[in-house]
Amino acid sequence: MSCAVKTTPPFISIAEYLGKAPLFVDIGAKYLREFVDAARLYTAPKGKVLFIQGDKANYVYLIVDGWVKLFRETLEGTEAVIDVLTSNHSFGDTSVFEDGYYSYSAEVAEHTRYITLPISMVKSAITTNHQFALNMLLTMSQHRHQQSREIEHLNNQNAPQRIGCFLLRLCPVGSAASVTLNLPYDKALIASRLGIKPETFSRALVKLRAETQIEIQGPTVIIHDLQRLVSYTCNHCSSSFPCKDVKG
Amino acid sequence: MSCAVKTTPPFISIAEYLGKAPLFVDIGAKYLREFVDAARLYTAPKGKVLFIQGDKANYVYLIVDGWVKLFRETLEGTEAVIDVLTSNHSFGDTSVFEDGYYSYSAEVAEHTRYITLPISMVKSAITTNHQFALNMLLTMSQHRHQQSREIEHLNNQNAPQRIGCFLLRLCPVGSAASVTLNLPYDKALIASRLGIKPETFSRALVKLRAETQIEIQGPTVIIHDLQRLVSYTCNHCSSSFPCKDVKG
Repeated sequence: MSCAVKTTPPFISIAEYLGKAPLFVDIGAKYLREFVDAARLYTAPKGKVLFIQGDKANYVYLIVDGWVKLFRETLEGTEAVIDVLTSNHSFGDTSVFEDGYYSYSAEVAEHTRYITLPISMVKSAITTNHQFALNMLLTMSQHRHQQSREIEHLNNQNAPQRIGCFLLRLCPVGSAASVTLNLPYDKALIASRLGIKPETFSRALVKLRAETQIEIQGPTVIIHDLQRLVSYTCNHCSSSFPCKDVKG
Repeated sequence: MSCAVKTTPPFISIAEYLGKAPLFVDIGAKYLREFVDAARLYTAPKGKVLFIQGDKANYVYLIVDGWVKLFRETLEGTEAVIDVLTSNHSFGDTSVFEDGYYSYSAEVAEHTRYITLPISMVKSAITTNHQFALNMLLTMSQHRHQQSREIEHLNNQNAPQRIGCFLLRLCPVGSAASVTLNLPYDKALIASRLGIKPETFSRALVKLRAETQIEIQGPTVIIHDLQRLVSYTCNHCSSSFPCKDVKG
Protein backbone atom coordinates (compact mmCIF):
# COMPACT_ATOMS: atom_id res chain seq x y z
CA MET A 1 0.00 0.00 0.00
CA SER A 2 1.39 3.35 -1.00
CA CYS A 3 0.23 6.94 -0.81
CA ALA A 4 1.28 9.96 -2.82
CA VAL A 5 2.38 12.98 -0.89
CA LYS A 6 2.60 16.80 -0.85
CA THR A 7 -0.14 17.67 -3.27
CA THR A 8 -0.68 21.40 -3.31
CA PRO A 9 -4.27 22.55 -2.90
CA PRO A 10 -5.44 24.64 -5.85
CA PHE A 11 -4.93 28.33 -5.18
CA ILE A 12 -7.92 30.57 -5.75
CA SER A 13 -7.38 34.11 -4.49
CA ILE A 14 -5.40 36.26 -2.07
CA ALA A 15 -8.57 36.78 -0.04
CA GLU A 16 -9.10 33.06 0.32
CA TYR A 17 -5.45 32.42 1.23
CA LEU A 18 -5.28 35.15 3.87
CA GLY A 19 -8.74 34.19 5.18
CA LYS A 20 -7.40 30.72 6.06
CA ALA A 21 -3.89 31.67 7.27
CA PRO A 22 -3.44 31.36 11.07
CA LEU A 23 -1.97 34.87 11.24
CA PHE A 24 -5.28 36.45 10.23
CA VAL A 25 -7.77 34.36 12.23
CA ASP A 26 -10.39 36.52 14.03
CA ILE A 27 -8.64 39.83 13.33
CA GLY A 28 -11.90 41.38 12.10
CA ALA A 29 -13.30 42.03 8.61
CA LYS A 30 -11.92 45.56 8.35
CA TYR A 31 -8.34 44.56 9.07
CA LEU A 32 -8.57 41.50 6.83
CA ARG A 33 -9.87 43.63 3.94
CA GLU A 34 -7.01 46.10 4.36
CA PHE A 35 -4.48 43.27 4.23
CA VAL A 36 -6.15 41.71 1.18
CA ASP A 37 -6.13 45.08 -0.63
CA ALA A 38 -2.45 45.68 0.11
CA ALA A 39 -1.26 42.11 -0.58
CA ARG A 40 0.38 41.20 -3.91
CA LEU A 41 0.74 37.74 -5.41
CA TYR A 42 3.89 36.83 -7.38
CA THR A 43 5.37 33.80 -9.04
CA ALA A 44 9.14 33.41 -9.31
CA PRO A 45 11.47 30.85 -10.90
CA LYS A 46 14.26 28.96 -9.15
CA GLY A 47 17.25 31.20 -8.51
CA LYS A 48 15.33 34.47 -8.14
CA VAL A 49 16.75 36.52 -5.26
CA LEU A 50 13.93 38.09 -3.23
CA PHE A 51 16.15 40.17 -0.98
CA ILE A 52 19.69 40.35 0.34
CA GLN A 53 20.83 40.43 3.95
CA GLY A 54 21.07 44.08 4.94
CA ASP A 55 18.38 45.27 2.49
CA LYS A 56 15.75 47.58 3.92
CA ALA A 57 12.85 45.35 5.05
CA ASN A 58 9.73 46.46 3.17
CA TYR A 59 7.67 43.27 3.03
CA VAL A 60 6.64 40.17 4.92
CA TYR A 61 6.43 37.13 2.62
CA LEU A 62 3.93 34.26 2.75
CA ILE A 63 4.63 31.16 0.63
CA VAL A 64 1.63 29.81 -1.24
CA ASP A 65 3.59 26.92 -2.78
CA GLY A 66 7.17 26.14 -3.78
CA TRP A 67 10.43 26.34 -1.81
CA VAL A 68 12.43 29.35 -0.61
CA LYS A 69 15.93 29.24 0.85
CA LEU A 70 17.00 31.65 3.61
CA PHE A 71 20.72 32.08 4.03
CA ARG A 72 23.48 34.25 5.38
CA GLU A 73 26.97 34.86 4.15
CA THR A 74 29.88 34.72 6.56
CA LEU A 75 32.50 37.47 6.38
CA GLU A 76 34.68 34.92 4.55
CA GLY A 77 32.00 34.44 1.91
CA THR A 78 30.73 30.98 2.87
CA GLU A 79 26.99 30.55 2.56
CA ALA A 80 25.07 29.23 5.58
CA VAL A 81 21.55 27.98 4.84
CA ILE A 82 19.49 28.86 7.88
CA ASP A 83 16.12 27.63 6.65
CA VAL A 84 14.30 26.21 3.66
CA LEU A 85 10.60 26.97 3.72
CA THR A 86 7.56 25.75 1.84
CA SER A 87 3.77 26.29 1.64
CA ASN A 88 2.19 28.21 4.52
CA HIS A 89 5.49 29.38 5.97
CA SER A 90 6.26 33.08 6.24
CA PHE A 91 9.54 34.96 6.31
CA GLY A 92 10.75 38.52 6.71
CA ASP A 93 8.46 38.81 9.71
CA THR A 94 11.23 38.93 12.32
CA SER A 95 12.31 42.20 10.67
CA VAL A 96 9.19 43.75 12.19
CA PHE A 97 10.94 43.67 15.56
CA GLU A 98 14.43 44.43 14.39
CA ASP A 99 16.03 47.55 13.01
CA GLY A 100 14.16 47.58 9.72
CA TYR A 101 16.69 45.53 7.72
CA TYR A 102 16.58 41.88 6.71
CA SER A 103 19.04 39.81 8.73
CA TYR A 104 19.32 37.12 6.03
CA SER A 105 18.96 36.73 2.26
CA ALA A 106 16.07 34.92 0.53
CA GLU A 107 16.26 33.07 -2.77
CA VAL A 108 13.68 30.96 -4.58
CA ALA A 109 14.84 27.30 -4.43
CA GLU A 110 12.03 25.91 -6.63
CA HIS A 111 9.33 27.63 -8.67
CA THR A 112 7.36 29.50 -6.00
CA ARG A 113 4.16 31.46 -5.61
CA TYR A 114 4.24 33.95 -2.78
CA ILE A 115 2.29 36.85 -1.31
CA THR A 116 3.86 40.06 0.00
CA LEU A 117 2.42 42.28 2.71
CA PRO A 118 3.80 45.76 3.46
CA ILE A 119 5.80 45.53 6.66
CA SER A 120 4.47 48.92 7.78
CA MET A 121 0.94 47.49 7.75
CA VAL A 122 2.00 44.42 9.74
CA LYS A 123 3.74 46.65 12.30
CA SER A 124 0.70 48.85 12.63
CA ALA A 125 -1.70 45.88 12.99
CA ILE A 126 0.44 44.41 15.76
CA THR A 127 0.14 47.56 17.82
CA THR A 128 -3.51 48.33 17.10
CA ASN A 129 -5.06 44.85 16.85
CA HIS A 130 -4.58 42.67 19.92
CA GLN A 131 -5.83 39.50 18.20
CA PHE A 132 -3.28 39.97 15.40
CA ALA A 133 -0.51 40.31 18.01
CA LEU A 134 -1.73 37.08 19.66
CA ASN A 135 -1.75 35.24 16.32
CA MET A 136 1.78 36.44 15.64
CA LEU A 137 2.85 35.28 19.11
CA LEU A 138 1.43 31.80 18.51
CA THR A 139 3.14 31.50 15.12
CA MET A 140 6.45 32.63 16.56
CA SER A 141 6.18 30.24 19.50
CA GLN A 142 5.68 27.30 17.13
CA HIS A 143 8.71 28.37 15.13
CA ARG A 144 10.81 28.69 18.26
CA HIS A 145 9.78 25.19 19.30
CA GLN A 146 10.79 23.84 15.90
CA GLN A 147 14.18 25.58 16.06
CA SER A 148 14.87 24.18 19.49
CA ARG A 149 14.13 20.66 18.20
CA GLU A 150 16.53 21.35 15.35
CA ILE A 151 19.32 22.41 17.71
CA GLU A 152 18.70 19.18 19.62
CA HIS A 153 19.09 17.16 16.41
CA LEU A 154 22.24 18.96 15.30
CA ASN A 155 23.72 18.12 18.69
CA ASN A 156 22.41 14.60 19.05
CA GLN A 157 21.57 12.84 15.81
CA ASN A 158 24.01 11.51 13.25
CA ALA A 159 23.73 12.42 9.56
CA PRO A 160 21.59 9.40 8.47
CA GLN A 161 19.15 10.06 11.32
CA ARG A 162 18.85 13.71 10.38
CA ILE A 163 18.00 12.72 6.81
CA GLY A 164 15.53 10.16 8.21
CA CYS A 165 13.89 12.90 10.26
CA PHE A 166 13.73 15.17 7.22
CA LEU A 167 11.91 12.43 5.26
CA LEU A 168 9.51 11.64 8.11
CA ARG A 169 8.56 15.31 8.33
CA LEU A 170 7.41 15.14 4.71
CA CYS A 171 5.08 12.22 5.47
CA PRO A 172 1.50 13.36 5.98
CA VAL A 173 -0.10 12.65 9.35
CA GLY A 174 -1.68 9.17 9.37
CA SER A 175 0.68 7.81 6.70
CA ALA A 176 0.32 4.18 5.67
CA ALA A 177 3.00 1.53 6.27
CA SER A 178 4.55 2.40 2.92
CA VAL A 179 5.00 5.98 1.67
CA THR A 180 6.30 7.45 -1.58
CA LEU A 181 7.87 10.91 -1.36
CA ASN A 182 9.04 13.27 -4.04
CA LEU A 183 11.98 15.16 -2.67
CA PRO A 184 11.03 18.82 -2.88
CA TYR A 185 14.38 20.28 -3.77
CA ASP A 186 17.87 19.35 -4.79
CA LYS A 187 20.08 17.15 -2.64
CA ALA A 188 22.82 19.75 -2.11
CA LEU A 189 20.24 22.07 -0.58
CA ILE A 190 18.89 19.30 1.66
CA ALA A 191 22.46 18.63 2.77
CA SER A 192 23.14 22.25 3.71
CA ARG A 193 19.73 22.55 5.37
CA LEU A 194 20.63 19.61 7.59
CA GLY A 195 24.14 20.84 8.32
CA ILE A 196 25.72 17.92 6.45
CA LYS A 197 28.69 18.32 4.08
CA PRO A 198 27.90 17.19 0.48
CA GLU A 199 30.55 14.43 0.62
CA THR A 200 29.11 13.10 3.89
CA PHE A 201 25.56 13.32 2.56
CA SER A 202 25.97 10.56 -0.04
CA ARG A 203 27.56 8.22 2.48
CA ALA A 204 24.86 9.01 5.02
CA LEU A 205 22.18 8.22 2.45
CA VAL A 206 23.81 4.84 1.73
CA LYS A 207 23.82 4.07 5.45
CA LEU A 208 20.19 5.14 5.88
CA ARG A 209 19.22 2.92 2.96
CA ALA A 210 21.01 -0.08 4.48
CA GLU A 211 19.48 0.50 7.92
CA THR A 212 15.90 1.20 6.89
CA GLN A 213 15.47 -0.40 3.44
CA ILE A 214 14.24 2.85 1.89
CA GLU A 215 14.47 2.95 -1.88
CA ILE A 216 15.77 5.97 -3.80
CA GLN A 217 15.00 6.43 -7.50
CA GLY A 218 16.16 9.85 -8.67
CA PRO A 219 14.05 12.44 -6.86
CA THR A 220 11.65 9.78 -5.52
CA VAL A 221 12.03 8.07 -2.17
CA ILE A 222 9.98 5.00 -1.31
CA ILE A 223 9.67 4.15 2.37
CA HIS A 224 8.57 0.50 2.34
CA ASP A 225 8.47 0.12 6.11
CA LEU A 226 7.57 3.37 7.82
CA GLN A 227 7.89 1.88 11.30
CA ARG A 228 11.46 0.81 10.62
CA LEU A 229 12.44 4.33 9.58
CA VAL A 230 10.66 5.71 12.65
CA SER A 231 12.55 3.32 14.97
CA TYR A 232 15.90 4.15 13.42
CA THR A 233 15.35 7.91 13.53
CA CYS A 234 13.07 8.79 16.42
CA ASN A 235 14.77 6.69 19.12
CA HIS A 236 17.49 9.30 18.98
CA CYS A 237 15.09 12.20 19.50
CA SER A 238 13.11 13.38 22.52
CA SER A 239 9.92 13.52 20.45
CA SER A 240 7.97 10.59 19.02
CA PHE A 241 6.51 10.28 15.52
CA PRO A 242 4.46 12.11 14.29
CA CYS A 243 6.06 15.31 15.59
CA LYS A 244 3.79 17.90 17.18
CA ASP A 245 5.90 20.78 15.90
CA VAL A 246 5.57 20.00 12.20
CA LYS A 247 3.97 22.92 10.41
CA GLY A 248 2.02 23.22 7.21
CA MET B 1 45.09 46.10 30.34
CA SER B 2 42.48 43.66 31.58
CA CYS B 3 38.86 43.87 32.70
CA ALA B 4 36.82 41.64 34.99
CA VAL B 5 33.61 40.28 33.61
CA LYS B 6 30.06 39.20 34.40
CA THR B 7 29.55 40.87 37.72
CA THR B 8 25.99 40.43 38.91
CA PRO B 9 24.22 43.60 40.00
CA PRO B 10 23.06 43.38 43.64
CA PHE B 11 19.51 42.10 43.84
CA ILE B 12 17.11 44.16 45.93
CA SER B 13 13.50 43.03 45.57
CA ILE B 14 11.04 41.23 43.30
CA ALA B 15 9.35 44.56 42.59
CA GLU B 16 12.60 46.12 41.48
CA TYR B 17 13.55 43.12 39.33
CA LEU B 18 10.17 42.91 37.55
CA GLY B 19 10.03 46.70 37.22
CA LYS B 20 13.18 46.60 35.10
CA ALA B 21 12.53 43.40 33.11
CA PRO B 22 11.66 44.02 29.42
CA LEU B 23 8.58 41.78 29.70
CA PHE B 24 6.88 44.19 32.10
CA VAL B 25 7.74 47.56 30.53
CA ASP B 26 4.72 49.87 30.28
CA ILE B 27 2.14 47.22 31.23
CA GLY B 28 0.54 49.52 33.79
CA ALA B 29 0.84 49.78 37.59
CA LYS B 30 -2.14 47.51 38.31
CA TYR B 31 -0.82 44.60 36.24
CA LEU B 32 2.72 45.04 37.55
CA ARG B 33 1.46 44.98 41.15
CA GLU B 34 -0.48 41.76 40.50
CA PHE B 35 2.63 40.13 39.07
CA VAL B 36 4.80 41.31 41.98
CA ASP B 37 2.26 39.95 44.50
CA ALA B 38 2.10 36.55 42.79
CA ALA B 39 5.84 36.21 42.12
CA ARG B 40 8.05 34.10 44.40
CA LEU B 41 11.83 34.27 44.75
CA TYR B 42 13.85 31.10 45.32
CA THR B 43 17.48 30.07 45.56
CA ALA B 44 18.56 26.59 44.49
CA PRO B 45 21.85 24.69 44.54
CA LYS B 46 23.54 23.03 41.57
CA GLY B 47 21.75 19.82 40.59
CA LYS B 48 18.27 20.85 41.73
CA VAL B 49 15.67 19.72 39.17
CA LEU B 50 13.08 22.45 38.63
CA PHE B 51 10.78 20.41 36.41
CA ILE B 52 10.79 17.40 34.13
CA GLN B 53 9.75 17.25 30.47
CA GLY B 54 6.06 16.30 30.45
CA ASP B 55 5.29 17.89 33.85
CA LYS B 56 2.22 20.10 33.97
CA ALA B 57 3.42 23.67 33.31
CA ASN B 58 2.47 25.80 36.30
CA TYR B 59 5.13 28.51 36.26
CA VAL B 60 7.22 30.77 34.07
CA TYR B 61 10.76 31.16 35.45
CA LEU B 62 12.97 34.28 35.39
CA ILE B 63 16.65 33.90 36.29
CA VAL B 64 18.01 36.57 38.64
CA ASP B 65 21.53 35.11 38.65
CA GLY B 66 23.20 31.72 38.22
CA TRP B 67 22.92 29.14 35.44
CA VAL B 68 20.09 26.80 34.45
CA LYS B 69 20.32 23.93 31.98
CA LEU B 70 17.37 23.01 29.74
CA PHE B 71 17.47 19.53 28.27
CA ARG B 72 15.46 16.74 26.72
CA GLU B 73 15.90 13.02 26.87
CA THR B 74 15.72 10.96 23.72
CA LEU B 75 13.67 7.75 23.76
CA GLU B 76 16.99 5.92 24.06
CA GLY B 77 17.86 7.87 27.21
CA THR B 78 20.55 10.19 25.84
CA GLU B 79 20.43 13.72 27.21
CA ALA B 80 20.34 16.62 24.75
CA VAL B 81 21.16 20.03 26.20
CA ILE B 82 19.00 22.50 24.33
CA ASP B 83 19.96 25.63 26.21
CA VAL B 84 21.95 26.94 29.17
CA LEU B 85 20.58 30.21 30.49
CA THR B 86 21.80 32.89 32.86
CA SER B 87 20.72 36.24 34.40
CA ASN B 88 17.72 37.92 32.77
CA HIS B 89 16.73 34.92 30.69
CA SER B 90 13.32 33.30 31.17
CA PHE B 91 12.12 29.77 30.52
CA GLY B 92 8.90 27.81 30.70
CA ASP B 93 7.25 30.63 28.76
CA THR B 94 6.76 28.68 25.53
CA SER B 95 4.42 26.39 27.53
CA VAL B 96 1.96 29.30 27.54
CA PHE B 97 1.24 28.53 23.89
CA GLU B 98 1.53 24.77 24.04
CA ASP B 99 -0.65 22.13 25.61
CA GLY B 100 0.06 23.04 29.22
CA TYR B 101 3.05 20.73 29.68
CA TYR B 102 6.77 21.53 29.69
CA SER B 103 8.45 20.27 26.53
CA TYR B 104 11.87 20.03 28.20
CA SER B 105 13.41 19.53 31.65
CA ALA B 106 15.16 22.24 33.68
CA GLU B 107 18.00 21.71 36.16
CA VAL B 108 20.10 24.20 38.10
CA ALA B 109 23.65 24.12 36.65
CA GLU B 110 25.17 26.51 39.19
CA HIS B 111 23.76 28.07 42.36
CA THR B 112 20.83 30.11 41.04
CA ARG B 113 18.31 32.69 42.22
CA TYR B 114 15.09 32.68 40.25
CA ILE B 115 11.59 34.10 40.29
CA THR B 116 8.45 32.13 39.43
CA LEU B 117 5.26 33.58 37.98
CA PRO B 118 2.01 31.58 37.76
CA ILE B 119 1.54 30.59 34.13
CA SER B 120 -2.23 31.22 34.42
CA MET B 121 -1.50 34.88 35.21
CA VAL B 122 0.89 35.20 32.25
CA LYS B 123 -1.72 33.64 29.94
CA SER B 124 -4.39 35.97 31.18
CA ALA B 125 -2.17 39.08 30.85
CA ILE B 126 -1.33 38.17 27.25
CA THR B 127 -4.98 38.17 26.29
CA THR B 128 -6.09 41.16 28.33
CA ASN B 129 -3.05 43.47 28.16
CA HIS B 130 -1.93 44.39 24.66
CA GLN B 131 1.36 45.93 25.81
CA PHE B 132 2.26 42.72 27.65
CA ALA B 133 1.58 40.72 24.47
CA LEU B 134 3.84 43.12 22.53
CA ASN B 135 6.63 42.75 25.11
CA MET B 136 6.34 38.98 24.89
CA LEU B 137 6.49 39.16 21.09
CA LEU B 138 9.67 41.24 21.21
CA THR B 139 11.33 38.87 23.68
CA MET B 140 10.40 35.86 21.58
CA SER B 141 11.62 37.48 18.39
CA GLN B 142 15.04 38.12 19.96
CA HIS B 143 15.22 34.52 21.09
CA ARG B 144 14.28 33.27 17.64
CA HIS B 145 17.02 35.40 16.14
CA GLN B 146 19.54 33.94 18.56
CA GLN B 147 18.44 30.38 17.77
CA SER B 148 18.76 30.97 14.07
CA ARG B 149 22.32 32.24 14.58
CA GLU B 150 23.03 29.10 16.57
CA ILE B 151 21.76 26.84 13.79
CA GLU B 152 24.04 28.76 11.41
CA HIS B 153 27.02 28.09 13.69
CA LEU B 154 26.24 24.40 14.15
CA ASN B 155 26.17 24.12 10.36
CA ASN B 156 29.11 26.34 9.57
CA GLN B 157 31.65 26.76 12.33
CA ASN B 158 34.14 24.17 13.51
CA ALA B 159 34.44 23.24 17.20
CA PRO B 160 37.25 25.73 18.10
CA GLN B 161 35.27 28.56 16.45
CA ARG B 162 32.13 27.66 18.37
CA ILE B 163 34.09 27.78 21.63
CA GLY B 164 35.59 31.11 20.50
CA CYS B 165 32.08 32.46 19.86
CA PHE B 166 30.94 31.24 23.27
CA LEU B 167 33.82 33.14 24.93
CA LEU B 168 33.21 36.30 22.89
CA ARG B 169 29.57 36.30 23.96
CA LEU B 170 30.70 36.48 27.58
CA CYS B 171 32.78 39.61 26.88
CA PRO B 172 30.94 42.78 27.85
CA VAL B 173 30.23 45.31 25.11
CA GLY B 174 33.18 47.66 24.72
CA SER B 175 35.73 45.16 26.02
CA ALA B 176 39.38 46.14 26.14
CA ALA B 177 42.12 44.50 24.04
CA SER B 178 42.68 41.96 26.82
CA VAL B 179 39.84 40.31 28.75
CA THR B 180 39.76 37.88 31.68
CA LEU B 181 36.72 35.59 31.86
CA ASN B 182 35.61 33.19 34.55
CA LEU B 183 33.87 30.32 32.84
CA PRO B 184 30.39 30.24 34.31
CA TYR B 185 29.90 26.47 34.44
CA ASP B 186 31.69 23.21 33.97
CA LYS B 187 33.40 22.29 30.71
CA ALA B 188 31.25 19.20 30.00
CA LEU B 189 28.17 21.41 30.04
CA ILE B 190 29.79 23.96 27.73
CA ALA B 191 30.65 21.08 25.39
CA SER B 192 27.08 19.76 25.25
CA ARG B 193 25.70 23.27 24.94
CA LEU B 194 27.87 23.77 21.85
CA GLY B 195 27.07 20.35 20.38
CA ILE B 196 30.66 19.17 20.81
CA LYS B 197 31.57 15.70 22.10
CA PRO B 198 33.67 15.81 25.33
CA GLU B 199 36.63 14.08 23.64
CA THR B 200 36.56 16.60 20.79
CA PHE B 201 36.19 19.50 23.20
CA SER B 202 39.68 19.16 24.72
CA ARG B 203 41.31 18.94 21.31
CA ALA B 204 39.26 21.92 20.08
CA LEU B 205 40.40 23.94 23.07
CA VAL B 206 44.05 23.13 22.33
CA LYS B 207 43.55 24.26 18.73
CA LEU B 208 41.79 27.48 19.79
CA ARG B 209 44.66 28.21 22.18
CA ALA B 210 47.24 27.72 19.44
CA GLU B 211 45.34 29.86 16.94
CA THR B 212 44.41 32.75 19.23
CA GLN B 213 46.94 32.68 22.11
CA ILE B 214 44.23 32.58 24.75
CA GLU B 215 45.40 31.35 28.14
CA ILE B 216 43.43 28.88 30.25
CA GLN B 217 44.09 28.52 33.97
CA GLY B 218 41.49 26.25 35.55
CA PRO B 219 38.13 28.02 35.28
CA THR B 220 39.76 31.28 34.14
CA VAL B 221 40.32 32.22 30.52
CA ILE B 222 42.54 35.16 29.61
CA ILE B 223 42.08 36.62 26.14
CA HIS B 224 45.30 38.56 25.56
CA ASP B 225 44.41 39.73 22.06
CA LEU B 226 40.67 40.17 21.64
CA GLN B 227 40.98 41.15 17.98
CA ARG B 228 42.83 37.95 17.18
CA LEU B 229 40.04 35.84 18.72
CA VAL B 230 37.45 37.94 16.86
CA SER B 231 39.24 37.40 13.52
CA TYR B 232 39.54 33.66 14.06
CA THR B 233 35.91 33.23 15.11
CA CYS B 234 33.77 35.88 13.46
CA ASN B 235 35.15 35.53 9.93
CA HIS B 236 33.20 32.28 9.84
CA CYS B 237 29.94 33.91 10.90
CA SER B 238 27.54 36.23 9.09
CA SER B 239 27.54 38.62 12.03
CA SER B 240 30.39 40.80 13.20
CA PHE B 241 31.58 41.35 16.77
CA PRO B 242 29.92 42.46 19.03
CA CYS B 243 26.78 40.49 18.14
CA LYS B 244 23.47 42.32 18.09
CA ASP B 245 21.56 39.29 19.34
CA VAL B 246 23.43 38.87 22.62
CA LYS B 247 21.01 39.13 25.52
CA GLY B 248 21.45 40.07 29.14
